[in-house]
Amino acid sequence: MTYCAGLLLNDGVVLASDTRTNAGLDNIATFSKMRIWERPGDRVVVLLSAGNLAVSQAVATLLDERAETEAPEGETLFTATSMFQVARLVGAVVREVRQMDGEALEAMSESFSATFLLAGQIEGGQVRLFQVYAAGNFIEATQDTPFLQIGEHKYGKPILDRVATMDMAPAEAAKLLLLSFDSTLRSNLSVGMPIDLMIYRKDALKVELKRRYEADDAYFKKISESWSEALRSSFGSVPDFEI
Amino acid sequence: MTYCAGLLLNDGVVLASDTRTNAGLDNIATFSKMRIWERPGDRVVVLLSAGNLAVSQAVATLLDERAETEAPEGETLFTATSMFQVARLVGAVVREVRQMDGEALEAMSESFSATFLLAGQIEGGQVRLFQVYAAGNFIEATQDTPFLQIGEHKYGKPILDRVATMDMAPAEAAKLLLLSFDSTLRSNLSVGMPIDLMIYRKDALKVELKRRYEADDAYFKKISESWSEALRSSFGSVPDFEI
Repeated sequence: MTYCAGLLLNDGVVLASDTRTNAGLDNIATFSKMRIWERPGDRVVVLLSAGNLAVSQAVATLLDERAETEAPEGETLFTATSMFQVARLVGAVVREVRQMDGEALEAMSESFSATFLLAGQIEGGQVRLFQVYAAGNFIEATQDTPFLQIGEHKYGKPILDRVATMDMAPAEAAKLLLLSFDSTLRSNLSVGMPIDLMIYRKDALKVELKRRYEADDAYFKKISESWSEALRSSFGSVPDFEI
Repeated sequence: MTYCAGLLLNDGVVLASDTRTNAGLDNIATFSKMRIWERPGDRVVVLLSAGNLAVSQAVATLLDERAETEAPEGETLFTATSMFQVARLVGAVVREVRQMDGEALEAMSESFSATFLLAGQIEGGQVRLFQVYAAGNFIEATQDTPFLQIGEHKYGKPILDRVATMDMAPAEAAKLLLLSFDSTLRSNLSVGMPIDLMIYRKDALKVELKRRYEADDAYFKKISESWSEALRSSFGSVPDFEI
């Protein structure tokens, strides 16, 4: 399993992903699920993935190889002219991988599962946040629902539902995502530390912060304990049971 | 979908269930999922159900019909001598219904799904809380994990994980379950009001409270708003983001 979440803000976008992959409970490993393509002054593109690791790695590697080609045949992450075009490109590569591997996966009764969060900004455009499905189509975060989640999204959703808004400061949104991860980590073993966090500030056209939170991270521990404490005291402050 | 939860306490047990059943998003209805068999001074048995409504109704009706028979052939809810025996009885009836209907359900590609929470006390015994599976086997709540949930359990689990303990007073536990339902109702449309809540106090051998919370219930609204408010202010009280 996996948990990735992104929150679109008036001032940018904040994204976080866990790093646990597992093939059964007795076979877990650490893989980063966050990839960043950055060309300072021109664009920042971030891709987070959930689902079959082979599928998501294949998608990222194809995107990567083509982006690095000096004279590519088609559009790449670095030549696309808008984030919408980038989302279409990611969708097209997902379909390409499905064409390569889908049949063999299905023959083994494995499903072709992969979902992506895609965010970023290209010079002259807006900061945008998309969720790309295994079918290659996608949706976009808006004012009404500024956050998107993939993977094990349920445990970490109540806090986002109540607190997330587009006018949060990036640092506030980062704290919120970390607390959403904390709730998920407590309840689902297949989501695991370390957590990768990324902050992008509107119009910066470079990554503001990319940080990994290890299991013993002092700040993460502090907010986790403080949040538990605050929840328990909040519970006490809610009006007592009346018949 | 459904959400039911039970919390075992040193002083008794508290249980709650929603009332929404659906066959597709365009076909929803209200059915109580909480059944109580009470013989004051002798026993209180409560059964909550999730899963296929036909299956859970069949199980409850068989249990009920036999309990009401004057000279029953085998053990019934009113003749069983311990809550463990009651759990075995419920499991046996689940298997019986599976034998009757399982094949036909599978032929229609419908799964035989049903899970139950079972709680109560019989004179001379302890208050106990069980979860009975579709296979008819069961587990029991203990000091380590005093709460059990069936149905859509994820959204309402973070608050239980952090707050639930066996030494809570029944009224406190009732407030906690209602807040756990509030989180679930906000995130999953297939879980719906009204909510049935039941409080049983140890050694009372009669129901202390059975109460239905309708959508416009003043207390439920009050704690729901107060909890949202408290969560937002708790979020503010957690240490600010540090790099």
